[in-house]
Amino acid sequence: MKQCSPEATARVGDHVADRLCAAARQVHSPVCVGLDPVLERLPDEIRSSACDPGSTVDAIESFCLGVLDSIVGHIAVVKFQSACFERHGAVGVQMMSRLIDAAKERSLLPILDAKRGDIGISASHYAVAGRALGCDWITINGWLGVDGISPFLENNGGAFVLVRTSNPSGEQMQNLVLEDGRTVSEAMADLVVDLGSSHIGDSGYSSLGAVVGATHPAELSSFRERLGNSILLLPGYGAQGGTAEGIRPCFDKDGLGAVVTSSRGIIYSFADKSGDWKKSVQEAAAAFSDEIGSISGMRS
Amino acid sequence: MKQCSPEATARVGDHVADRLCAAARQVHSPVCVGLDPVLERLPDEIRSSACDPGSTVDAIESFCLGVLDSIVGHIAVVKFQSACFERHGAVGVQMMSRLIDAAKERSLLPILDAKRGDIGISASHYAVAGRALGCDWITINGWLGVDGISPFLENNGGAFVLVRTSNPSGEQMQNLVLEDGRTVSEAMADLVVDLGSSHIGDSGYSSLGAVVGATHPAELSSFRERLGNSILLLPGYGAQGGTAEGIRPCFDKDGLGAVVTSSRGIIYSFADKSGDWKKSVQEAAAAFSDEIGSISGMRS
Repeated sequence: MKQCSPEATARVGDHVADRLCAAARQVHSPVCVGLDPVLERLPDEIRSSACDPGSTVDAIESFCLGVLDSIVGHIAVVKFQSACFERHGAVGVQMMSRLIDAAKERSLLPILDAKRGDIGISASHYAVAGRALGCDWITINGWLGVDGISPFLENNGGAFVLVRTSNPSGEQMQNLVLEDGRTVSEAMADLVVDLGSSHIGDSGYSSLGAVVGATHPAELSSFRERLGNSILLLPGYGAQGGTAEGIRPCFDKDGLGAVVTSSRGIIYSFADKSGDWKKSVQEAAAAFSDEIGSISGMRS
Repeated sequence: MKQCSPEATARVGDHVADRLCAAARQVHSPVCVGLDPVLERLPDEIRSSACDPGSTVDAIESFCLGVLDSIVGHIAVVKFQSACFERHGAVGVQMMSRLIDAAKERSLLPILDAKRGDIGISASHYAVAGRALGCDWITINGWLGVDGISPFLENNGGAFVLVRTSNPSGEQMQNLVLEDGRTVSEAMADLVVDLGSSHIGDSGYSSLGAVVGATHPAELSSFRERLGNSILLLPGYGAQGGTAEGIRPCFDKDGLGAVVTSSRGIIYSFADKSGDWKKSVQEAAAAFSDEIGSISGMRS
């Protein structure tokens, strides 16, 4: 596996994997913050202003902008949980679009966490929709096979396939054992590698990545090896059970090859605390970035 | 398995499976028309009016309304391919919302074909979003297990899980064989039955259905048996390879238990024909309804 050269600075128009590598280098840490905003968990000062459906969306947007401002400098990748925006209908989608623009204005690389999975022209439509929102990377579901994956790679698009998810019931389908000895999720990983092999950038990484839950530390090393040139997106680190020891093998010698993502641990870090909520988010983002920067080897 | 009583007339507020059974009875045929509108395939007279992005959406909406008007009386269930609307961003979602309202005004039961698959609160958000659009039924992806399915069944919601899809590459994951001899899609079917068993309506059918491609005639009888109380949603009949003989075992003695869905074969039936496009759609819908009404045994 080739590595990002330390001098590389990817620009828009470069291969989508190279740009993701460059984003991690920008803050010296392969980290991502997930935006999963729900009204009930917003800071009191913001939530109290939301008393009708219209102001709910305003409150969420205000909160997300505050989070973006707070994480800049520590984090370079931000993941938008599409469900949290779609639940507010068309105005929610418009809000997400504005926030993605705001992220890019702050030099944050956006990932659309939409977990889409459809075929042919419908998959192409979802790919177009994601790109129109401003996201070159999207999370997708590979249950429908190559028909449901390839359309997302067109025009230098990038996608993370759900290989081994972090939720408790993920094992119900994903850990079933095939007659050839592989688990179902390992078979999905092999499909990802096969498809991604013809979409590799200068960094040595492909535009087809894989979501692998950090909540399964014992499986991570094996998935890292199996997934070759794919970048791993790792949710579930920290409170959900992912450990430093578990994720360490996911990085190459330059600290690349995986991106650790944290959502609620960062954006709701102010809960049960007094004081400035943005400062709390900033401190949590800085600590997360420091920690993963060190574990990955990107910071010595 | 209990059956819909012939006298049953389900009302809004009734169990979602009972309402789907009642919709099929309303037109004496367990059929659904899929709305997958793309600009390139619209009738010339509509497409020619669309020369900027705003008028594209108007053109698609006008076309879909024409289709809804044309199928009423022959078809009682209509499936909205969310991707075709989402690709137009927030205005596309707003258009879909208006069209779902229009379908309901015409006593058509809407299914949101969104193939969503997420967990916990995100799954709940998608469920809320689908219900807010006016759809009690949604298609979902079961890759994440029960965490990704159960939220869609709350508040008398209904969901069709992608069990065995009709696309060529569906077999890449779904037909892999487990060490216990089941295919992966059979394992998914078993998960559906297990979860659906506590959500059964007066009709004898559950609010957790299954998408099974009619393109796999040899597998249909076995899936019907395995899926017990689940209603099958069958795409791929006709041009895509599904046969009358293949789908016949999917229906119970009253012609219920499965809904056959056709999209392009109906809504683009005017292609390469002269004359009134709406009349062509109407005739195609009527012929489809007659054919499936007969095969299912609902029409003697």
